[in-house]
Amino acid sequence: MPFKAVVFDAYGTLYDIQSVAAVTEQAFPGHGDIITQIWRIKQLEYTWLRSLMQRYDDFAVVTRDSLVYTLRVLGLRTDAATLDRIIAKYLDLDPYPDARAALAAMKDHRLAILSNGSPAMLDGLVRASGFDSLIEAVISVDAHKIFKPSRQAYALIEETLGLAPDDVLFVSSNPWDVCGAKAFGLNVAWIERVSPEAMAAACLETDLVRPLTMFKALRTQMDELGFAPDYRIAALSELPEIVSTHEP
Amino acid sequence: MPFKAVVFDAYGTLYDIQSVAAVTEQAFPGHGDIITQIWRIKQLEYTWLRSLMQRYDDFAVVTRDSLVYTLRVLGLRTDAATLDRIIAKYLDLDPYPDARAALAAMKDHRLAILSNGSPAMLDGLVRASGFDSLIEAVISVDAHKIFKPSRQAYALIEETLGLAPDDVLFVSSNPWDVCGAKAFGLNVAWIERVSPEAMAAACLETDLVRPLTMFKALRTQMDELGFAPDYRIAALSELPEIVSTHEP
Repeated sequence: MPFKAVVFDAYGTLYDIQSVAAVTEQAFPGHGDIITQIWRIKQLEYTWLRSLMQRYDDFAVVTRDSLVYTLRVLGLRTDAATLDRIIAKYLDLDPYPDARAALAAMKDHRLAILSNGSPAMLDGLVRASGFDSLIEAVISVDAHKIFKPSRQAYALIEETLGLAPDDVLFVSSNPWDVCGAKAFGLNVAWIERVSPEAMAAACLETDLVRPLTMFKALRTQMDELGFAPDYRIAALSELPEIVSTHEP
Repeated sequence: MPFKAVVFDAYGTLYDIQSVAAVTEQAFPGHGDIITQIWRIKQLEYTWLRSLMQRYDDFAVVTRDSLVYTLRVLGLRTDAATLDRIIAKYLDLDPYPDARAALAAMKDHRLAILSNGSPAMLDGLVRASGFDSLIEAVISVDAHKIFKPSRQAYALIEETLGLAPDDVLFVSSNPWDVCGAKAFGLNVAWIERVSPEAMAAACLETDLVRPLTMFKALRTQMDELGFAPDYRIAALSELPEIVSTHEP
């Protein structure tokens, strides 16, 4: 039986979160990389911590708070207008170059997004990229007020699409998201954008590392959480073949 | 009314998790810093992720898994004996230099630990440091099979000591732990070991950072989670005065 739907993570999977670096660098010349990396690392931390603390607030709040944290830690002063300008990039992130073609190649399947993003953030993002015509449903964890990788977040796929987890292929580049989706019972394809060889080489060159290297070391390699993806691909462009040839 | 008990976080608060760097450096010369930082960052991530995924496993497992991840990411080969030797340091972490004196100075108060550590890990640690004679109760989150900052973890203080949250001063150097304890309703003292000024200076010197600097940027500055500590101190040695003069 083929998959009845392919559901994508948004940030880091269809959309390149590193594309905010152009904006952070413009606002704080020379510091774009470290701002971008600490911001993203803390953004995800805050989703996990708020979920555990039972203090949910939506991803727009978390995104702003984590940027405020980042600039404070770096001792960089800012104003509301600059903050707004940086955060606005989250509504217009660059899609990965192969995202549109991959979605279009799977147009005979039901396609959806399941994301931590707030409904307003996701709506802006999907419209700006023009993916709204390719995707049937944009599912925000906001409906259950808890972030991935909690089980309640992944349960929204079945609640929205009416499909059992085993009928769905979930696609993410985020290792923690892959593990969470597997633990929940979904079929999962992991997009491995940073090879283990490139990763190790970048880390071990010197005593000092680029913030981007630390980000990659923390968030691009498969986690040790007791789960493994069903499919391991290097780019979205490999997905259509998996989806078309799948016979579980 | 004075506090009826002072409850300490263990890792990073009474015991210096950075003291594993001597062991990681010995095992992998030149790479001790990056191993130490990625290991600690992932160790905490795994506690949060496993808690959200409802896939609890104890802190000994998480500590080993996060070290395995770290060495794999860095492309460092190892064997079980080396892994065991590195992990053994977690049973014998260096206490902060002022920890013993601070505990001894508060001996008229009920003193306890609430930690993510497994009972066996905490037992080893408290005995190795000789703090067992100073501390009434060593409380492991393992009793509820979920890690801090979940509310169920902090609830163990009342369940074990029979004291309401408002009668307890919780002490942690970990900002996320401070926020979690405040969200739960405890009085909280935050040990701020890295000043904002030192932090900003370390981050902005060059395009490259030490892994320790990235660790500090991620995990030593107060988080933007909507909570603030009741007391902000620079060292454990400041605690006895707060505890002795407190009148809420």
